[in-house]
Amino acid sequence: MLEGLKIEVYKANQELAKQGLVTLRWGNISARDERTGYIVIKPSRRACVEIKPDDLIVCDMEGKIIEGLHAPSSDLFTHLEIYKAFADVKSVAHTHSKWATVFAQAGKSIPNLGTTHADYFKYDIPVTRTMRPEEIARDYEKNTGKIIAEAFTLKNPLATPAVLVKNHGPFMWGASIMDTVDNAVALEYVAEMAFYTLRLNTDAEMNKYLIDKHTLRKMGGKNGQ
Amino acid sequence: MLEGLKIEVYKANQELAKQGLVTLRWGNISARDERTGYIVIKPSRRACVEIKPDDLIVCDMEGKIIEGLHAPSSDLFTHLEIYKAFADVKSVAHTHSKWATVFAQAGKSIPNLGTTHADYFKYDIPVTRTMRPEEIARDYEKNTGKIIAEAFTLKNPLATPAVLVKNHGPFMWGASIMDTVDNAVALEYVAEMAFYTLRLNTDAEMNKYLIDKHTLRKMGGKNGQ
Amino acid sequence: MLEGLKIEVYKANQELAKQGLVTLRWGNISARDERTGYIVIKPSRRACVEIKPDDLIVCDMEGKIIEGLHAPSSDLFTHLEIYKAFADVKSVAHTHSKWATVFAQAGKSIPNLGTTHADYFKYDIPVTRTMRPEEIARDYEKNTGKIIAEAFTLKNPLATPAVLVKNHGPFMWGASIMDTVDNAVALEYVAEMAFYTLRLNTDAEMNKYLIDKHTLRKMGGKNGQ
Amino acid sequence: MLEGLKIEVYKANQELAKQGLVTLRWGNISARDERTGYIVIKPSRRACVEIKPDDLIVCDMEGKIIEGLHAPSSDLFTHLEIYKAFADVKSVAHTHSKWATVFAQAGKSIPNLGTTHADYFKYDIPVTRTMRPEEIARDYEKNTGKIIAEAFTLKNPLATPAVLVKNHGPFMWGASIMDTVDNAVALEYVAEMAFYTLRLNTDAEMNKYLIDKHTLRKMGGKNGQ
Repeated sequence: MLEGLKIEVYKANQELAKQGLVTLRWGNISARDERTGYIVIKPSRRACVEIKPDDLIVCDMEGKIIEGLHAPSSDLFTHLEIYKAFADVKSVAHTHSKWATVFAQAGKSIPNLGTTHADYFKYDIPVTRTMRPEEIARDYEKNTGKIIAEAFTLKNPLATPAVLVKNHGPFMWGASIMDTVDNAVALEYVAEMAFYTLRLNTDAEMNKYLIDKHTLRKMGGKNGQ
Repeated sequence: MLEGLKIEVYKANQELAKQGLVTLRWGNISARDERTGYIVIKPSRRACVEIKPDDLIVCDMEGKIIEGLHAPSSDLFTHLEIYKAFADVKSVAHTHSKWATVFAQAGKSIPNLGTTHADYFKYDIPVTRTMRPEEIARDYEKNTGKIIAEAFTLKNPLATPAVLVKNHGPFMWGASIMDTVDNAVALEYVAEMAFYTLRLNTDAEMNKYLIDKHTLRKMGGKNGQ
Repeated sequence: MLEGLKIEVYKANQELAKQGLVTLRWGNISARDERTGYIVIKPSRRACVEIKPDDLIVCDMEGKIIEGLHAPSSDLFTHLEIYKAFADVKSVAHTHSKWATVFAQAGKSIPNLGTTHADYFKYDIPVTRTMRPEEIARDYEKNTGKIIAEAFTLKNPLATPAVLVKNHGPFMWGASIMDTVDNAVALEYVAEMAFYTLRLNTDAEMNKYLIDKHTLRKMGGKNGQ
Repeated sequence: MLEGLKIEVYKANQELAKQGLVTLRWGNISARDERTGYIVIKPSRRACVEIKPDDLIVCDMEGKIIEGLHAPSSDLFTHLEIYKAFADVKSVAHTHSKWATVFAQAGKSIPNLGTTHADYFKYDIPVTRTMRPEEIARDYEKNTGKIIAEAFTLKNPLATPAVLVKNHGPFMWGASIMDTVDNAVALEYVAEMAFYTLRLNTDAEMNKYLIDKHTLRKMGGKNGQ
């Protein structure tokens, strides 16, 4: 079932690897089928480049396996919480991409310092709060999703479609699978540039009028360069 | 029309990607036809590696489409202002290459600290001034070109064929398409080296006599190593 | 003899190179045969990518050559000391991978700052003590192995399967050849991230509860993303 | 003439490019023929990856072209001075490899901080003195070679076969073409590691006994890992 969606998710996993965002087995991308509400996700303990479309798992929003021969990614319940909290999100990805993870480990948000950031993310990329011992001990993956949703209270998750889970790494999402991959690429790129920009000029800051301009251009379609 | 020039622009777009200067759809290169004065530029919303020669757009210096099935790059009007201001320029490129963009985001010019810089750029690579709200609200891309021209008032744009647009990224140009690609490669390289050189020695500075020597060598042709 | 193990060691050498962990001839990986107790190791003065399975050397735990046409890696006696000290280790690798070597040269351990680290290494990656002149003058490679074992006194070497030899570089090990390669990849990755995390936030620290959680998840198998 | 040597020099140029040490046309390698004393060098204004064996130039020690259809690299006279000053050197290379050039631009020598450095270079990699205006104005390339020789007064150039020309970039040499390429690779690698090692620990220093040990191991052949 959902063969077309599986092929798209398969290609997106390949693309994450090709873009240098996943190392070993650290990464996964899922998508939500609009008609059934089912989620297609990567199996556990497999590298993005190894899997074939038939290896992908179909499950419902409670995590019940509908189709699939393997266990789903251990991050499944984080993905599900994100889909539940963000109604317009069609795809979710997770990586340990280097620079985004550096900010996550440092517990620092990624500031918006240029148009590359503004073309994809309106605001700073937020970092989640410290998880409490009891949130880690029980339902860890689900609670990871809950603190992600918490970080977007009163914010539009599609205006800034990424988050840094503290001491862990980034999650990205989008209104399509392709947008989600692009957001993963852009996130890593702006994280690295933000790091070095602040080393070069600790007072660097974005022109607020450029943020509005580039956010509006984006609403009219993809970045048009 | 202009089939030969289209093939050259097509190859230059491929080369920008191959040199690691463009990510996703962030980059473009155009060229001016000497006879007609027309500009050949990449279509909007397409990656440099995806386009074919026939996808390229031909337009006049006012931005009127002469030939082409797609919308031109949204940066077209920035390119046109550069061609208008710098008469000897035959090609213009724009990227978000990482290190040049870091300097642009920091609002810092790239200092000339070695012969690699001097072989391509006589002076520091300047950064444009902050854009005013009204320049962003209306004719944003055209005004981006105007503040680039402003940064070269009383300077020879071919002696230092690159600029950093503040909070955005670099534009490069040249007396030929091939020179423009080389300048894009050299810019990114010297930006990275300047960053680290100043971390290693905050007092680092260029031997002024070497600048003159290498500028003169360049006038006699390309870097001859 | 041990043809199957030789093919595995051959592939692991290729994988170290493919993962960008070895430059020129700086690196090697060995494995212990469970039945005979013999070690299969790379010949000396050869790049990981050049060797074929038949080039590999078989020797006993005292370093006596059992089979092989070439001299074994000069690091053989370090490998042997590690096998002697750590009974459950089935494979040992050595590289000069860049970031792990930077920490080794600085004489600093790599702190556990995130789940990427915790998924592979429970504790900080330790650095060995300074070698004494007489340890260097005689039986240098063997003594290198001895100070590695010293760094794990009262510690489980499979809980944190890597070490930094001061002023030299990292050694990694594992309960299988594949684990050892993964540990080499993960070590380099977490070293780089730790470096930048501390630049971004000198007070960065790991959530202790996450360490336990991820260590336990790992015990249940490989990282399941 | 010297067809065998030309093929070796051709391959070495390819290898410099493959190892990521040359960008655009910034780099060259030459070799000295033992019998005739002639030098084989890359033509000017060509990329290392473009040239074929027949494109190489043969010249004598005064720079007179013996065979060749193109102008030799503009760095020829620097190479010749190095061959004249260092009698045992059989090959010379020049690159603008990133990290070595960063140290050259900063005017800082590369300190010996680990065994990777000691396996190739006994001492710190020296940086040349500032060139005087008259040395730049006339016979610039020849004078570059002279200040390189000056930096090795009373030192064995094969014990530390590389130098940083201030505000310019590195030159490397060796007792064979293959050694010279290896030295170029090792130089860039140790330059990068030295930079980061000192950021991690400003007091980092090498164990002097390890320098002697690794220098001696090297005398017995190539690094034997």
